[in-house]
Amino acid sequence: MIILLKENANPKQVENLTKFLRGRGFDLHMSQGTEHTIIGLIGDTSKIDIDLISSLDVVEAVRRIQEPYKNANRKFHAADTVVDIGKARIGGGHFMMIAGPCSVENRDQICEVARDVCVSGANVLRGGAFKPRTSPYAFQGLHGEGLRLLSEAKKESGLPIITEIMDINHLPLFEDVDIIQVGARNMQNFELLKELGQIRKPILLKRGLANTIQELLMSAEYIMAGGNEQVILCERGIRTFETATRNTLDLSAIPVLHKLTHLPVVVDPSHGTGDNELVAPMALAAVAAGADGLIIEVHNDPPHALCDGKQSLTPEQFNALANAVRAIMPYGAKEMSWS
Amino acid sequence: MIILLKENANPKQVENLTKFLRGRGFDLHMSQGTEHTIIGLIGDTSKIDIDLISSLDVVEAVRRIQEPYKNANRKFHAADTVVDIGKARIGGGHFMMIAGPCSVENRDQICEVARDVCVSGANVLRGGAFKPRTSPYAFQGLHGEGLRLLSEAKKESGLPIITEIMDINHLPLFEDVDIIQVGARNMQNFELLKELGQIRKPILLKRGLANTIQELLMSAEYIMAGGNEQVILCERGIRTFETATRNTLDLSAIPVLHKLTHLPVVVDPSHGTGDNELVAPMALAAVAAGADGLIIEVHNDPPHALCDGKQSLTPEQFNALANAVRAIMPYGAKEMSWS
Amino acid sequence: MIILLKENANPKQVENLTKFLRGRGFDLHMSQGTEHTIIGLIGDTSKIDIDLISSLDVVEAVRRIQEPYKNANRKFHAADTVVDIGKARIGGGHFMMIAGPCSVENRDQICEVARDVCVSGANVLRGGAFKPRTSPYAFQGLHGEGLRLLSEAKKESGLPIITEIMDINHLPLFEDVDIIQVGARNMQNFELLKELGQIRKPILLKRGLANTIQELLMSAEYIMAGGNEQVILCERGIRTFETATRNTLDLSAIPVLHKLTHLPVVVDPSHGTGDNELVAPMALAAVAAGADGLIIEVHNDPPHALCDGKQSLTPEQFNALANAVRAIMPYGAKEMSWS
Amino acid sequence: MIILLKENANPKQVENLTKFLRGRGFDLHMSQGTEHTIIGLIGDTSKIDIDLISSLDVVEAVRRIQEPYKNANRKFHAADTVVDIGKARIGGGHFMMIAGPCSVENRDQICEVARDVCVSGANVLRGGAFKPRTSPYAFQGLHGEGLRLLSEAKKESGLPIITEIMDINHLPLFEDVDIIQVGARNMQNFELLKELGQIRKPILLKRGLANTIQELLMSAEYIMAGGNEQVILCERGIRTFETATRNTLDLSAIPVLHKLTHLPVVVDPSHGTGDNELVAPMALAAVAAGADGLIIEVHNDPPHALCDGKQSLTPEQFNALANAVRAIMPYGAKEMSWS
Repeated sequence: MIILLKENANPKQVENLTKFLRGRGFDLHMSQGTEHTIIGLIGDTSKIDIDLISSLDVVEAVRRIQEPYKNANRKFHAADTVVDIGKARIGGGHFMMIAGPCSVENRDQICEVARDVCVSGANVLRGGAFKPRTSPYAFQGLHGEGLRLLSEAKKESGLPIITEIMDINHLPLFEDVDIIQVGARNMQNFELLKELGQIRKPILLKRGLANTIQELLMSAEYIMAGGNEQVILCERGIRTFETATRNTLDLSAIPVLHKLTHLPVVVDPSHGTGDNELVAPMALAAVAAGADGLIIEVHNDPPHALCDGKQSLTPEQFNALANAVRAIMPYGAKEMSWS
Repeated sequence: MIILLKENANPKQVENLTKFLRGRGFDLHMSQGTEHTIIGLIGDTSKIDIDLISSLDVVEAVRRIQEPYKNANRKFHAADTVVDIGKARIGGGHFMMIAGPCSVENRDQICEVARDVCVSGANVLRGGAFKPRTSPYAFQGLHGEGLRLLSEAKKESGLPIITEIMDINHLPLFEDVDIIQVGARNMQNFELLKELGQIRKPILLKRGLANTIQELLMSAEYIMAGGNEQVILCERGIRTFETATRNTLDLSAIPVLHKLTHLPVVVDPSHGTGDNELVAPMALAAVAAGADGLIIEVHNDPPHALCDGKQSLTPEQFNALANAVRAIMPYGAKEMSWS
Repeated sequence: MIILLKENANPKQVENLTKFLRGRGFDLHMSQGTEHTIIGLIGDTSKIDIDLISSLDVVEAVRRIQEPYKNANRKFHAADTVVDIGKARIGGGHFMMIAGPCSVENRDQICEVARDVCVSGANVLRGGAFKPRTSPYAFQGLHGEGLRLLSEAKKESGLPIITEIMDINHLPLFEDVDIIQVGARNMQNFELLKELGQIRKPILLKRGLANTIQELLMSAEYIMAGGNEQVILCERGIRTFETATRNTLDLSAIPVLHKLTHLPVVVDPSHGTGDNELVAPMALAAVAAGADGLIIEVHNDPPHALCDGKQSLTPEQFNALANAVRAIMPYGAKEMSWS
Repeated sequence: MIILLKENANPKQVENLTKFLRGRGFDLHMSQGTEHTIIGLIGDTSKIDIDLISSLDVVEAVRRIQEPYKNANRKFHAADTVVDIGKARIGGGHFMMIAGPCSVENRDQICEVARDVCVSGANVLRGGAFKPRTSPYAFQGLHGEGLRLLSEAKKESGLPIITEIMDINHLPLFEDVDIIQVGARNMQNFELLKELGQIRKPILLKRGLANTIQELLMSAEYIMAGGNEQVILCERGIRTFETATRNTLDLSAIPVLHKLTHLPVVVDPSHGTGDNELVAPMALAAVAAGADGLIIEVHNDPPHALCDGKQSLTPEQFNALANAVRAIMPYGAKEMSWS
C-alpha cells in the first residue's frame, strides 16, 4: 500500500500517522519528493481500512498494490481450486454442467427434468425452492416441500443437487443439498456469508447486479475467512443501460477472474440474458472464454413454468446445447474435460 | 394490463390463454386488429406474473397499465403518509433531520455527537452498530454493545434513534430502536423484508445501488403487504460509470417518488457522494427538490472515525448545514415545516 | 403502434388526435375498454415521432410494435447482407479478420505489421491515421501522411484497408480506403452519417459507449437511408460501473443483432477490454457467439506503440489467435467460412 | 505522476524507461522499496500519455497526481471565469437563465416565446435549428431558416441567442449567434472542438451521456487549448439503468466541477429528466447546489411542439419557475445574483 501525503502536510500529523501505522505492525518506507512525500507500507495490508487512511487530513491518496483479498487470491494459492462433489467436479480442468428448472413445481416436473438433463450429460441438478421475486405477489417457491422433492429427484436420477438459500435460518433444511447457491441479491448479505463460512459444503456465489469483480472476490473472502474454501463464482449478468437483454452478461469476467483467483468460474446465460434464444450462443461463448461450468435453466414445459419460463430451454434444446458445448470445449481458451 | 398477441397466433392457444386468464378472475376485453389481437385485462393485475404471461408462445408483448405495487401506490392512497415517532415526524409537510456517526464507537463519542446534533436541531440520532463492510477484515461495528450505547445516548439526549439491521435474528436487540434501517445491500433481502412487515415499527428502506425506483417501491410493498405501513424511502446514490463521486445521487428520484407513492422520502448525501465537501450542496439540493428529510453523518473527530470518516461532517459543519437547510426550506419544491 | 389513451380523455381532444393521425395516412383501429381506449395504428410508423405522440395531453402511453428502423430490419430483408471488398467478404457465412496497429506510426511499422498479419490469415489491414484521443495533448495520428503510408502497405501486402474518419471534410483523403470506420464517439454524429450515406463504400459503424443496440441500428439506418447499404456493425464494449476492464464487451449483442438485422457484426476485443491478456479469450468467445468478423490490434512493438500499446498483440500472439479462431469456428453458434 | 515498477523489473528496461522520461524533460525522483521501485515525475505531465507508460513491461501501475487538464484547472486559475455576452453574464456570481423552445418552428412561435421568457426574466434565448435526432425520419430542424428566424427573435426581444452546432461546415451561418452549443452527442467530436477553439465566441459544452466529469473537462481543454477560453459547461443527465427518467441528472457534478475548474456550470433539467413535471424541482435543486445557470425548454404549445414537447414548460410555468429560482437563489450553496 502506498500513501501519498498532501503537499503541505503538517509534520506533527505525519508523525502521528507513521506512529499509528507502525503501531499496527507495518514497516514503513518513506520517500521524500520535491512536492509530495510517499509512504510505502510493508506487511499484510489486507486488514487495513483504506477509507480510514484516505480520510486523514494529511493524506492526498492511497493506493493498494496488494489486492484486499487473500484466501481467494491466486498470488497466494497458484493452483486451481477443484470442488469435488462425488459425481461431478469443477476447476483445474474439470467442467461442470448444472441444469434444471428455475423452480421446483411438483414431483413429476422435477424428476422428469432430472432424468432428461442427466441423459444429456448434466452432472448437477438445479431447482429453486426459495425464490427471490421482485414482487411479494409473485410465486415464491415451494420452500421445504421443494427441497424434499429435489431430494427425491436426486435419489432417482443420481445427480447431486444445487439450490438457493435466502435465509440462514433455513440452513437445517439444506442437509441433503450438495451445493448451496447464494443469489445475486444476497451477494453482499454479509451475515449470511459469514454463516456459510462456518459450514463445509461448496457454495456457488453469484455476482450481484451492480457488483464489481473485486467485490465478488471480497464476498468470496467472507466465506473463505470462516474456513470454507469451496467457493464457486458465478457470472450472471450485470445491470447496464441496455434493455435489449434483461442483463448484460459480462463474459470478460471469466478471464479476469482466472487471473485474479484460483476459484472456479461458472456462467449463467439463462439469467444473464433472460431470453432462451440467446442461451445457446452465450453458453458457447462462455466455454470459449474459459468458463469452468455452466448453469442452464431447463423446463419440460417452459410456457407453463411458474417463473422465468421465457429463459428456459426445453430438454431437447438442452440436449443440443450440451452436445455443442462438448464439441467446442477442446477449442476454447482453456483445456477442460467434462468428466 | 394489455397483452399483445403474435400475428400468427394459434386460435387454440389463444383459447387456452383466455380460459387461463378468466380462471384467474379477470374480465377480458378482446380487440381484433388487422395484424394483431390485443387482450385487455380488467381486474387486480398486481398479483399476475408478467414474466409468465410474456413467455407464452402466442404472446408478443405484455404491458402493465397499473403499477405492480398497491399499498405503496399514491393512486390508492392519495394523502401523504406521516410517520410519527414522538419527538419527530416525517411526511405530509413534516421534515425529519437525522444525524449521527456512521458507527457507534464508544460511550463518549455517541453521547457527545448526540448532544451536538440535538442542539443544532436534529430530531433523530443515527449510529451504526452492525456495519455492512465490503471486506471481512474491516471494522464491523460494536453489535449488541453498540445498540446499548445508542440507547444511552437516546436517554441522555432525548432523541429517538435509528440504526441498521442486517439479520432478522438480531431483531430482539432492536427493542429500544425507534426506526429500523434496511441498508442498500439488503433492499432485496426479501426474507428480511417479510419479517419486518410483521412488526409495527417504522422502517427506513434504502434504495439499492443498482435498483430502479420501481424495485424500491416493490420492496416497500413487501413490508407493507405484511401490514407494516410505516415505511420511509431513502435515496442514497446509485452506481454508474462516474468515479468522481462514490455513487451518483439521483435527486430526480424525489419528485418521481412523490408522484408515485404517498410514502415519505429521505436523502442521504453522505453515502450518496462519499465526500464531506459535497454533503452541504447536495443536502440543500435535496431539500429544494422536495425531500421530506435528510440523513447526515456527523462525527466529533472525522479523521479518526472507524469508518467512513471521509464523508462525515464535524458538529460545527453540521450546525451550519442545519441552519442553511432551515433557511432554504420555505423556497423548495414542497412546503415543509421542521417541527 | 399502439396508443393508450388516458382514462378521462376529453372526447374533443381524442377527435383531434384521430384526425391528425388519419391525416398522416394511418388507418386506425379503435378499441374501447372499460377504463382505457386503445388506438392501433396501421401503416408505416417508422416515420412517426413517438415523443410527439406520447407528449399529448390525452395520451397515457405509446408502444411501438414495429421497430423504428426499416432498411436495417431483418423483417424486411431476410437474407444476410454480404459486404464484398474483393479479397475479403463478410456476412452470409463469410468471416472477416481485420488486424493491424492502433495508429500508423511510420512506413516500416505499418508494412511489417501488414506482412505479418497477412501471413497469419488476416484479410483486411487496419491502421489509424486520425485518432480520437481524450486529451488534446496526446498523439493524434499522422493524418494525411498516415493514410499515404496505409496505401503503401496495402499495395505491398495486397490487403484491403480500413481506417477511421473523424470529419467529413477529410473524405477526399479516403479514396484508396476500402472500408471507412466510424468510431464509437461519432456513432451519433448524424451529419457525418448522412454524408456517408451518399457514398458507395462499406462503412464499419462502431457502437457508442453508452448506446443501445437499437440506437446502433438507428445510426445504421441514417447511412442506409441515404442509399449506402454496405454497413458493418461493430460491438466494442459499453461503459458500465466495472473498472477491471476498460469497457464491458457486450457479446450478447451478437445474437441480438443477428435476430434484428441482416447486417454483419464484427467484434473488437482489443478496445472492448483494453488488455492484451483478455483479447484471445474474448475473441474466441465472440466467434463462438456467432460474430461475422473480428478486429484486432496488432503491433510489432507494443511497449513502444504511440497509442493503446497495452491492448495490442504481438504478431506472434496474433498468429496463435488466428489459428485458434480457425479451429473454433466450425463449433460456434453460426456456420462460417474464413475465405 | 507516480510510476510503480514491477517487483522483478529488469534493470536494463528500467534504465531505458528513465532515459526515455528524462529525454522528455522530466526530473525523476526514484524511491526504492523492499519490493517495488517508485518513480516520481517532476514537470508538466499533462502532455504525457498515461496509457503508453502503463503498457510498458516493467510498469505495474501509473497514477496521476496532477489532473490531465491545465487551462480548465482551478489550480492554475483560481478565479471564476466570467462569460459576458452583453446583456447576460455567467460565472463569478452571475446567474444566467436560458430559455426557449427545443426547435425553432416558425416566426410566430419563436418570437412569441422570446417575448414571454424575456418578460419572465430569461436573459438568453435558446432555440434549435439543427436537431440531432436518433431517427433519420424524425424532424431535423429548419437549419439555415431556423437560424434566420432566431436572429429575428433576437432583434425583436433584445435577447442574446444560443443554438447548437452539429457540423463545423455550418459555422458561417452562426455569425449572429451569441453562444454556440455543442450537444451531448458531440462532446467528443474532437475535430469540431478543435475548430471551436479557433473562434472567439462562448461555447456551451454539454456533457455526453456516458462521459465522466474528467472527460468533460478534457473536452473543454480541447477548446481552450486553441485559445478560446469562454467555455460554459453543462450537466444534462447521464445514462444509467434507471428508466423512470430519460436520463439521470447528476447534480453532484455541480460542486465537483466548481472544485476542479473555474468555468461556469449550467444545468439542463429539461433534457436531464425528459418530463416537464420534474423540471421545476430539479431546477431548484440545481440552483441550491450552486449552478451558475439553467437552460430550460419553453414552448407556447407543448402538445404540438415538433420535438421534445413532453419536457417543455408553458410560458406560464416558466414564469412561475423563474420566480421560484429568484426566491431560492440567496439560500443556495453559492452566492449569486441574477443580473
